[in-house]
Amino acid sequence: VIVETPPSITGVHETVVYGSELAALTAFYEDALRLRRVSTMGDLGVALRLADGGVLLLFDPAKASGPGRDVPSHGATGPGHVAFTIPAGSYDVWLGTLRRRGVEIEDEIAWERGGRSIYVRDPAGNSVELVDGPIWRE
Amino acid sequence: VIVETPPSITGVHETVVYGSELAALTAFYEDALRLRRVSTMGDLGVALRLADGGVLLLFDPAKASGPGRDVPSHGATGPGHVAFTIPAGSYDVWLGTLRRRGVEIEDEIAWERGGRSIYVRDPAGNSVELVDGPIWRE
Repeated sequence: VIVETPPSITGVHETVVYGSELAALTAFYEDALRLRRVSTMGDLGVALRLADGGVLLLFDPAKASGPGRDVPSHGATGPGHVAFTIPAGSYDVWLGTLRRRGVEIEDEIAWERGGRSIYVRDPAGNSVELVDGPIWRE
Repeated sequence: VIVETPPSITGVHETVVYGSELAALTAFYEDALRLRRVSTMGDLGVALRLADGGVLLLFDPAKASGPGRDVPSHGATGPGHVAFTIPAGSYDVWLGTLRRRGVEIEDEIAWERGGRSIYVRDPAGNSVELVDGPIWRE
């Protein structure tokens, strides 16, 4: 028997953010973060496309965790976290845009080894970070 | 006042998976999914690097949600979900590898519009999907 080693996973394809108020949640990611919706799954959730081809899923955890779905169920509660990459040098423009929209800036961090992060909350209380520059070094 | 439109978010930089049994959780992602650890943050969590530069964070929600962290706190409970992209055509190799490791295959889906998914659970009960081919169409 020849046992083949699988090729490395390429990257994360879908990241999920949960929130029970889907309309407000979707408006935040579409309007404030300017992500593009590619699918609406009834009252279960929506799928948003990132520029690199990745997908951000917004799910109502009560619906996503229910039985009878076509896929394995899931659904977390409590504040989650997602960090997005913004183009290099766009930190100040993003900071200004968020402030003009009335999005509270919870924190800003200039990392010791380079890179900066803006932290806000989405309407469900998830911690959303915008990252300018590499912040995880080997 | 010139209001500059921010350039589009590039992609997801950090995706989080939560689990209180960090050692078992880390072993699953390192050994079964062969992701590479780049940082260990005490008993808070670990950071794993994806081939495309993205980062998967494994966090103990009890620690990540606590006060006194250097960054805004978060921490969800209940089963979350993450989907990974695997190289085109590696579906069968990944399926065989997971089975040989004793990882239960919860579901397999051949999507109507193309692409296939393998669904397993990590030790914390999160739904983990391996995706071969494009499954979200515009």
